[in-house]
Amino acid sequence: MDIRVQKTFEALFALEDIREMLRQSLPGTGLADTEGFNGQIQHIRSVLDDLEAGTGVPKIEKIGGTLGIRSREEEYVNIQPIQAAGRLTPEARKALIAYGDGYSTCDSCRKPFRLDKISKPPIADFHQELAAFLNMDAARVVPGARRGFQAVASSLVKPEDPVIVSSLAHYTEFLAVEAAGGVVREVPLNEKNIVTADATADKIEAVIAETGKTPALIMIDHFDYQLANEHDVAGIGKVAKQYDIPFLYNGAYTVGVMPVDGKKIGADFIVGSGHKSMASPAPSGVLATTDEWAETIFRTTQMKGDLTNRKFGVKEVEMLGCTLMGCTLMAMIASFPTVKERTLNWDEELRKSNLLIDRMLEIEGSAVVSEYPRKHALSKVDTTGSFDVVAKAHKRRGFFFSDELSKRGIVGEFAGATRAWKLSTYGLSWEKVNYLADSLQEIAEKYELKVNRDNL
Amino acid sequence: MDIRVQKTFEALFALEDIREMLRQSLPGTGLADTEGFNGQIQHIRSVLDDLEAGTGVPKIEKIGGTLGIRSREEEYVNIQPIQAAGRLTPEARKALIAYGDGYSTCDSCRKPFRLDKISKPPIADFHQELAAFLNMDAARVVPGARRGFQAVASSLVKPEDPVIVSSLAHYTEFLAVEAAGGVVREVPLNEKNIVTADATADKIEAVIAETGKTPALIMIDHFDYQLANEHDVAGIGKVAKQYDIPFLYNGAYTVGVMPVDGKKIGADFIVGSGHKSMASPAPSGVLATTDEWAETIFRTTQMKGDLTNRKFGVKEVEMLGCTLMGCTLMAMIASFPTVKERTLNWDEELRKSNLLIDRMLEIEGSAVVSEYPRKHALSKVDTTGSFDVVAKAHKRRGFFFSDELSKRGIVGEFAGATRAWKLSTYGLSWEKVNYLADSLQEIAEKYELKVNRDNL
Repeated sequence: MDIRVQKTFEALFALEDIREMLRQSLPGTGLADTEGFNGQIQHIRSVLDDLEAGTGVPKIEKIGGTLGIRSREEEYVNIQPIQAAGRLTPEARKALIAYGDGYSTCDSCRKPFRLDKISKPPIADFHQELAAFLNMDAARVVPGARRGFQAVASSLVKPEDPVIVSSLAHYTEFLAVEAAGGVVREVPLNEKNIVTADATADKIEAVIAETGKTPALIMIDHFDYQLANEHDVAGIGKVAKQYDIPFLYNGAYTVGVMPVDGKKIGADFIVGSGHKSMASPAPSGVLATTDEWAETIFRTTQMKGDLTNRKFGVKEVEMLGCTLMGCTLMAMIASFPTVKERTLNWDEELRKSNLLIDRMLEIEGSAVVSEYPRKHALSKVDTTGSFDVVAKAHKRRGFFFSDELSKRGIVGEFAGATRAWKLSTYGLSWEKVNYLADSLQEIAEKYELKVNRDNL
Repeated sequence: MDIRVQKTFEALFALEDIREMLRQSLPGTGLADTEGFNGQIQHIRSVLDDLEAGTGVPKIEKIGGTLGIRSREEEYVNIQPIQAAGRLTPEARKALIAYGDGYSTCDSCRKPFRLDKISKPPIADFHQELAAFLNMDAARVVPGARRGFQAVASSLVKPEDPVIVSSLAHYTEFLAVEAAGGVVREVPLNEKNIVTADATADKIEAVIAETGKTPALIMIDHFDYQLANEHDVAGIGKVAKQYDIPFLYNGAYTVGVMPVDGKKIGADFIVGSGHKSMASPAPSGVLATTDEWAETIFRTTQMKGDLTNRKFGVKEVEMLGCTLMGCTLMAMIASFPTVKERTLNWDEELRKSNLLIDRMLEIEGSAVVSEYPRKHALSKVDTTGSFDVVAKAHKRRGFFFSDELSKRGIVGEFAGATRAWKLSTYGLSWEKVNYLADSLQEIAEKYELKVNRDNL
């Protein structure tokens, strides 16, 4: 590990040990162990000296005896397709530090005792802002986008009900429908691997003709997880209205990276992922809806104890009461100003994405499987005609490519894959994107693949 | 805020800013902004000087512009009833620092692509250890105990099915049954506010007689959330076997603080809470079961795309695939060695709990609502005859008590409550427990309540 990275973690961890001394002390009586405290301060000073000089002996620490330090983001250019937009902001990391303890959000929980009503810290305000950010009427945080799908499917889908999904639907949509007892029906892709409004309408008609039932729900990913192609969600929103079928917009790859306007799209539900696209820790996500649907999805409990007559008033059934009662939510809130701001820079992210793809395509034999030009930072490329040719003849097979990337400080490709694979440029600086593109071409040339510079 | 606490956070946050500089730099090329870096190191040195001296000007920082620093654990003795055992270990805090980014657990996710199968970091091992720790056959992590109830209820409870719960059942059990379409039926308490095996058997008989249906599930809290009384879970386990009804042991208040042996109890399911009792961030929890039930609760998806024929093999329906894909899980793992160890010191925690209650009872007019002697660190007390008498005549009403506690660095009581209220001594040092007891008696004497020292 880079010594500066190592020393940064050493200093952070040493400060957590200081913090523990403060925690163990009695209020107002000063430190229990002044000598230990001063010794620890001295230790941190020496770690800082090392950090500044970039020298010193790394003191490898396994957290809790088993967990190594994760330094992927400090030491590498990370192109892992699903990690990019879930990377924390410094603010989110500070919130994790300050709010890590279990029920840390609940210090000032008062009647009616529900997470989204807490005003200190400003959780209630955040819920308002979140709904406004998506141009929806109400929002809740959930432990991952999948829990948003589950809440909606569980509310709307009865056993055997058909649910319209994309042929590129994420597996968690399948599971949410399955848990509710429904059946997925996939809309075919067009020749460009896009889900269109017409194809959705045709599928609805086919399902009605076959089953006699109008689908209970339409769930469509704005950008899918396989190719990150853009699907016609606004058109599908119109179709949904025509058939009077509720429409769930899956924004796992959009909410938090690009502007999303629920009303404009015609979405009845918007689901987003905190750890995928909102610079938040896992598990976190958002479920937003309209006034029309809020009472259904966020319905409060009606269950009554037969003996005690207990009822739990405002607790929402699908949320199971409260959801993210600690640092996951606080980190989401801490990242939110940055997240809002960054959605306005989506065009620049697309320019970076396209630059990388263009330079990849200059490597002869390479292709892009996703739609092109790119409308997303995540792309699927096909290097069967380039890097895979090298892999076939290399004793390390596809791992030669991982080795070469890793030597250059690049990680996140699927190790060993040299045919179709995915990467994301999201959130990388121009400098890093150029470095990444240069590195790919350098590796190509090292193995005598032809690079048609400026060919495009 | 105490200046040392303030400066500790300042140093931690400043190091996160250093870390961000490392993140922004290109691999292997050194720091982009050496000057900024060196300046930041200097800044941290001066913060350390202040920290050591316990002086300096607090630089108030609102994280992300809105979130204050939470220093409840550093500055106060926290007696909040549900926060005590969810307080993080230093190891968990270090894990949050190192693994905060979204999908941080997924760097080495390989076939079959499921969280509990990941071996680096040792997540698969942790799952084995977790099952063994509870003497069960299989375990999964879930986003909170409530999500464990939900998974079991959703698997076993059909519409209108009766489910046996305690008259002190937590509301999340009600919601889980409601979401599945079932109906709760409460077992009455005996004169000591305990759920017994006989009463459970009687309730089962009554439900069968009334509905003609054998209950689909029994969910009983080992210690309930209202009084933290111990209920006869082992006896109820036997009754469950006799009636062949699956039995869910709710260990939200036990798993992680005292030894729990699922086989001995006769539990088919054990649910625990990470943020309540396992020194873990929210939302986190555990759901464990036996080989007999694992295939039901952890059943894998059978849903197939009608067009693509896609199936998602090993993904578990009730888990919705993966659950805690980031730092919540890593913090649980980091705390786990400490958590395992501390369950062996439960007796000492009970001695602390009883010491506090005994000293509280020395304040004339005070009573304990929970069973006594205490078998748990969480207790409900009744100070209607002591502190509430003062409150009635005080211009701040019940808040006089909060004020007095707060002055002494004690927080976590329900603000303004002077009749029945709850507190927990869990995890407090003897020194803090004595300090707490002294403080309560001091407050009593200040307001001329009689304290019968050593009366008990």
